[in-house]
Amino acid sequence: MRVEKYQIDDHNSQLQGKHQRKLDNLSVDIPQAEEVISKLAAFQIAIPSWALGTGGTRFGRFSGGGEPGSLEEKMEDIGLLHALNQSSGAISLHIPWDIPQNYQDIKALAAQHGLSFDAMNSNTFQDQAGQAHSYKFGSMQHVDKAVRKQAVDHNIEVIRHGVELGSDALTVWLSDGSSFPGQLNFRKAFQNTLESLQEVYAALPSNWKMFVEYKAFEPNFYSTTVGDWGQSLLYASKLGEKAYTLVDLGHHLPNANIEQIVSLLLMEGKLGGFHFNDSKYGDDDLTAGSIKPYQLFLIFNELVEGMDAKGMDHTTGLGWMIDASHNVKDPLEDLLQSVEAIMIAYAQALLVDRKALNEAQAQNDVARCQEILQETFRTDVRPLVAEARLRGGAALQPLELFRKLKVRENLIQERGLKTVATGL
Amino acid sequence: MRVEKYQIDDHNSQLQGKHQRKLDNLSVDIPQAEEVISKLAAFQIAIPSWALGTGGTRFGRFSGGGEPGSLEEKMEDIGLLHALNQSSGAISLHIPWDIPQNYQDIKALAAQHGLSFDAMNSNTFQDQAGQAHSYKFGSMQHVDKAVRKQAVDHNIEVIRHGVELGSDALTVWLSDGSSFPGQLNFRKAFQNTLESLQEVYAALPSNWKMFVEYKAFEPNFYSTTVGDWGQSLLYASKLGEKAYTLVDLGHHLPNANIEQIVSLLLMEGKLGGFHFNDSKYGDDDLTAGSIKPYQLFLIFNELVEGMDAKGMDHTTGLGWMIDASHNVKDPLEDLLQSVEAIMIAYAQALLVDRKALNEAQAQNDVARCQEILQETFRTDVRPLVAEARLRGGAALQPLELFRKLKVRENLIQERGLKTVATGL
Amino acid sequence: MRVEKYQIDDHNSQLQGKHQRKLDNLSVDIPQAEEVISKLAAFQIAIPSWALGTGGTRFGRFSGGGEPGSLEEKMEDIGLLHALNQSSGAISLHIPWDIPQNYQDIKALAAQHGLSFDAMNSNTFQDQAGQAHSYKFGSMQHVDKAVRKQAVDHNIEVIRHGVELGSDALTVWLSDGSSFPGQLNFRKAFQNTLESLQEVYAALPSNWKMFVEYKAFEPNFYSTTVGDWGQSLLYASKLGEKAYTLVDLGHHLPNANIEQIVSLLLMEGKLGGFHFNDSKYGDDDLTAGSIKPYQLFLIFNELVEGMDAKGMDHTTGLGWMIDASHNVKDPLEDLLQSVEAIMIAYAQALLVDRKALNEAQAQNDVARCQEILQETFRTDVRPLVAEARLRGGAALQPLELFRKLKVRENLIQERGLKTVATGL
Amino acid sequence: MRVEKYQIDDHNSQLQGKHQRKLDNLSVDIPQAEEVISKLAAFQIAIPSWALGTGGTRFGRFSGGGEPGSLEEKMEDIGLLHALNQSSGAISLHIPWDIPQNYQDIKALAAQHGLSFDAMNSNTFQDQAGQAHSYKFGSMQHVDKAVRKQAVDHNIEVIRHGVELGSDALTVWLSDGSSFPGQLNFRKAFQNTLESLQEVYAALPSNWKMFVEYKAFEPNFYSTTVGDWGQSLLYASKLGEKAYTLVDLGHHLPNANIEQIVSLLLMEGKLGGFHFNDSKYGDDDLTAGSIKPYQLFLIFNELVEGMDAKGMDHTTGLGWMIDASHNVKDPLEDLLQSVEAIMIAYAQALLVDRKALNEAQAQNDVARCQEILQETFRTDVRPLVAEARLRGGAALQPLELFRKLKVRENLIQERGLKTVATGL
Repeated sequence: MRVEKYQIDDHNSQLQGKHQRKLDNLSVDIPQAEEVISKLAAFQIAIPSWALGTGGTRFGRFSGGGEPGSLEEKMEDIGLLHALNQSSGAISLHIPWDIPQNYQDIKALAAQHGLSFDAMNSNTFQDQAGQAHSYKFGSMQHVDKAVRKQAVDHNIEVIRHGVELGSDALTVWLSDGSSFPGQLNFRKAFQNTLESLQEVYAALPSNWKMFVEYKAFEPNFYSTTVGDWGQSLLYASKLGEKAYTLVDLGHHLPNANIEQIVSLLLMEGKLGGFHFNDSKYGDDDLTAGSIKPYQLFLIFNELVEGMDAKGMDHTTGLGWMIDASHNVKDPLEDLLQSVEAIMIAYAQALLVDRKALNEAQAQNDVARCQEILQETFRTDVRPLVAEARLRGGAALQPLELFRKLKVRENLIQERGLKTVATGL
Repeated sequence: MRVEKYQIDDHNSQLQGKHQRKLDNLSVDIPQAEEVISKLAAFQIAIPSWALGTGGTRFGRFSGGGEPGSLEEKMEDIGLLHALNQSSGAISLHIPWDIPQNYQDIKALAAQHGLSFDAMNSNTFQDQAGQAHSYKFGSMQHVDKAVRKQAVDHNIEVIRHGVELGSDALTVWLSDGSSFPGQLNFRKAFQNTLESLQEVYAALPSNWKMFVEYKAFEPNFYSTTVGDWGQSLLYASKLGEKAYTLVDLGHHLPNANIEQIVSLLLMEGKLGGFHFNDSKYGDDDLTAGSIKPYQLFLIFNELVEGMDAKGMDHTTGLGWMIDASHNVKDPLEDLLQSVEAIMIAYAQALLVDRKALNEAQAQNDVARCQEILQETFRTDVRPLVAEARLRGGAALQPLELFRKLKVRENLIQERGLKTVATGL
Repeated sequence: MRVEKYQIDDHNSQLQGKHQRKLDNLSVDIPQAEEVISKLAAFQIAIPSWALGTGGTRFGRFSGGGEPGSLEEKMEDIGLLHALNQSSGAISLHIPWDIPQNYQDIKALAAQHGLSFDAMNSNTFQDQAGQAHSYKFGSMQHVDKAVRKQAVDHNIEVIRHGVELGSDALTVWLSDGSSFPGQLNFRKAFQNTLESLQEVYAALPSNWKMFVEYKAFEPNFYSTTVGDWGQSLLYASKLGEKAYTLVDLGHHLPNANIEQIVSLLLMEGKLGGFHFNDSKYGDDDLTAGSIKPYQLFLIFNELVEGMDAKGMDHTTGLGWMIDASHNVKDPLEDLLQSVEAIMIAYAQALLVDRKALNEAQAQNDVARCQEILQETFRTDVRPLVAEARLRGGAALQPLELFRKLKVRENLIQERGLKTVATGL
Repeated sequence: MRVEKYQIDDHNSQLQGKHQRKLDNLSVDIPQAEEVISKLAAFQIAIPSWALGTGGTRFGRFSGGGEPGSLEEKMEDIGLLHALNQSSGAISLHIPWDIPQNYQDIKALAAQHGLSFDAMNSNTFQDQAGQAHSYKFGSMQHVDKAVRKQAVDHNIEVIRHGVELGSDALTVWLSDGSSFPGQLNFRKAFQNTLESLQEVYAALPSNWKMFVEYKAFEPNFYSTTVGDWGQSLLYASKLGEKAYTLVDLGHHLPNANIEQIVSLLLMEGKLGGFHFNDSKYGDDDLTAGSIKPYQLFLIFNELVEGMDAKGMDHTTGLGWMIDASHNVKDPLEDLLQSVEAIMIAYAQALLVDRKALNEAQAQNDVARCQEILQETFRTDVRPLVAEARLRGGAALQPLELFRKLKVRENLIQERGLKTVATGL
């Protein structure tokens, strides 16, 4: 299944009049509209290969149909998304689920869909068939050096795959931790993990980054060995300048102020990347912006402010990725919704009147600070996001077109009703 | 200090052009705009008398200036708010802080400011000078019948004041609970509290309602005797048809789904009223909509849906009140911001396409359900809210006018810099 | 594999001297020791059939060996536990995982192991092969009557199996809820669920109880349709006198005061049963008493106090069950640890000086209230628990004997290393 | 009021028989009992001067009687505690509440009571009468350099007082933060705070330590500028080797694993000190060990393990202090209970079989790890703690003797019923 240019054009031409009217109305009050549209057009969010199938919980999974059964089909799916929104031009691979048979073929396929290869992901939270050692009691933290070595070797292998494909970053998420008091010596677990990470770091090509992802809990339910931003920053600082912290929005304790964490990591030059999703209780992996859209905006507000303060490029300065689980929605629809929510938050953050905010902050004018942020959050910036899509040749209303073209029905036709994609 | 009609007219005439343009642009796509504006104009949010002064925490209070030092000045403050937004036409009194010297004078003053008397509030969480018994170990839950009687008598006295003023509801918030395991027999505490409430209930005029407010924790840090909606509903059900649950947004455990609670209480015919504020950690008493504006919208979405399903009048069906603490902002500015956020959420909830939502729900079309809610949440409805104000003779931009007229500076001039209002 | 009487006797005779010394030392200060020992000996905790295999999370499962592959083997496992501690004399079945081939055989096997059949558990949170309708969007809450009927029919079938086996209770845990705002109409979801429960209730034999279990979140991550004790109580009250609330310790929002909930449910005559486990973050399903042993004691303190106040029999008055997931421990060892922790908490609760506590409460002597509770919690009551086991013919140190007899190694020998039990 | 030696001796001689029996019974199974008793005898916990009066919340305060009205009376109170338990031999002063009139007199008084001067505490969270600048919008984070300088100068003055008295540490707790999104530029707030701390650090005598305390929220309700251990560690690392993190048990987000934080800070050589208390919801400031005694033990388990691994002296290696608020108990009774709970947790941690635990951890024998920790937690170690007191000339049952001697009644006699101590 492909979305053809004429289909997008048809769709756009029908909506163009209304869109233009709204854009014009909005632009009257936004002198910097053009600049914002350009930045939106440049902004790309990587799609993880494991998010294209229906996700599940420990209580079960209710698969949909037409799920991609191979790396090629996953790339086809992301190609569909990218055709529809021109904002999803990257794929983040998971090894061993996505080991390419032939690098050149896969790179050619990526080029065909306009996709680049974002951060590579390793997996030491599950045992693979035929694996010498089990990760039941951790991987890089493990008391047994042989298990740690296996985890290190796996990560180095992941880097190798990434080098072949043109990726330049490795995301290390460790589920390592403990479920009961006494199970671990926290200090030794930290030191084993650090040593293991150092061995992987030593294998990192010079132009690569290593992202150290933290998570408060799950699948371990007492402690996690990279459990919060403070721990991740400790690892990243000890590792060296190519190591960074990766923030996943669902990986915090209740009520955490994530935007402050983001700001401080940027200040330290140690924020590496982002996993977007939303959550109410824990690592719920819901659609970005579906529960706390204001928080998403506040985070982007810090990102824009902090990156601008450092002169970082918004598009390439950090790794941007969705990491969600689609248990009750069509994964492709969900991803379209997530990308839309992210683009809206980014657009709003771009529109914040920073000069006025700086002044209000300098005067401790708290009510005014709030007004300034809420002014842009309450503004309906969707015409700007749509215009960025339009100019890039994508659809004004991606989700609407997805449904009109019966993409899912076509995929089921092609792939069958009972496929199950690898993923969570 | 009064805001004069000509001042509002001046302000509005300067902003009128831009406002009308935005309203026109918005109305193109909103056929029901007129109906929404009417409902917004009718909607009134009561201001609690204790929210007009700077609030504090146990660590201290940093007072501002020009705070109201008497009931009359508190009513003047609310009169100012109401003149500016025509949405704050009620005052909620706290006894003993606001005992009127002369009912007729106070009623005349209220009429002058266009204010009615909303729910009366009793206080059994503090000891007053000269009080026979201490509430250190609770009031209506107290092991000593004499203390319970004192609390009951106080509440009956509060009702008497309310009757004189034309109020028709009593809000009972009890801080009763315990700070240590073993301190209370939970069952006896419940039964003592129920018995006490029954005695107050018996003194309730036939046209009155009693609101039983719940709170998860603080000032007691182990248990609270009316601790959650389930407990409040138990009391209200046992009390009778004039007893209802009151929901304060900050009174829940982390991550609670408040909109679901609201929906179920409405279903049971037992939702009585609302205390608006916002919070990140606990009973933070921040400006409504300042932390989780989407949650505020979702709550209004349930309120509108549930009230419409019951044929309830939006304005009079429930008691609407702000309950916030203004520690770092000018209290009047903060209240203007809270009212604005509430009106926006209400307007958005009125705009939800219920027919489409019902259909999408009936088809388990989860992505579409989300689209429908976010469509209205992302719409900039501020022109509708402003238009409702305009038609009521209030200011298009209340906060802007408040500042331009130097209201606070005038109040300081009149009242002095060092006044301290009673409150929290 | 069976544990033979002589093996237990051998074990006990070696430990007897030390045990007797400790028991004697303890008994000097505990006049009611005999009474406590008797109550401990009578107390039985049901083992759920799904807890005998290694559990997992959505990120994977690391199976151990020798897991039971049939209902018969599950009963053998519980028989082993019961032989070792004489406190695990009941099994709680899960349908469809445990549908008996032949009721008489299974009952005979149960008798052989000294086991009775505790509450039956239904499953409408997963789709079974060949099922007409999917539970992807709920079961009893479902918008489609046909799906609801399927769920009702399944529960009625579960009752039928239970009747044949001599069970007298049905536990209904529904994962029904929503993952996104707007997905559900909360009110209709409640009413559909209530109607479905009523149909099941109508099929309940006259001597049966129905337990309505609540859970705050997971596997749905926005709302749960039986989400807290208040909702469960609403359902149970509307259903009738055979319906009760079931409390699972891991099913609450952060910081919930579970002991207060227990007390109030007992007060209302609506507490039906318990699922023991422990948790730090959510439904972590850890070993009972492994994270918050003081909370477990406080809960038992309320249970004993409340049951005694109602004249309820401790053993039969409520349904007692473990519900845990054993991801990193041998499931049988974990269950032995859970039972031990529960017995210790129960013993401590029995030892609370209620007369003194009542007096201290009546005097608001908070420090003394705490002293009284901590006095028993700090007492090492393990000799009483061990003595109760000894008198019942069980092992003084069940876990020690389990290891010495190499029970797991024997089970692996018999069943193989690669078996996977059904469960979570 | 003084507790005389003969009164303690009388008390002890009456309890001696029972105590000795229990100690003997316990010691049979504890070969290292003598060593543990010695360590317990050496362990001292500082009492903060502000904890001697009844505490309150923002909703009010219910004072008791006989509260200390001067620094001298506060020292008298701590002298009473120390006479009763010989474990409270230090006072932690708060400036400006406790500015001595005459250092020599105060030092002489301290010597008389056997007290040393623990960490000094500064106060920049409240405005003092006559203060040039307000801390309403923060102190060390403030946008105005003059305010920051005032806060720095105050801290340097606190150091000066401490030097005169023989203290050697400064605890800096900043309430700095924000209550609304946008109020602060997080990065600038951090940098201002760092710069201010550096100026204080520069004034630190060479033998002093600086403790940087963190807190998640309250009194600011959106962000705190030293908000978690990661931020505190960042400050402490940038400041230098005399700067350390201070952990207060109530200053975390829900469900935080504090024991892991403690372990990692010790690993980094950056744990400086402790504020003991307990909490269920937030900074509840309840009696140590009153809510989560197992957590307290687990923390001490990490402390003992980590300090031993570094060869640190248990008594002097870290700063040990209680920081609680006594709202419903007699403050002195509460402090006796807190010290007892801390000593018990410390004793249990000393008894952990580390060799066995190390082995079990090395084998991933999770069930055994749990058994080892719970073995000591379930052991009733109170006889060891009492024996340490006995040998030091203190009371076997301090709280009992406190009541028998009618200490509070005597203090009321001496000081009156209506005194109110400075504090929270």
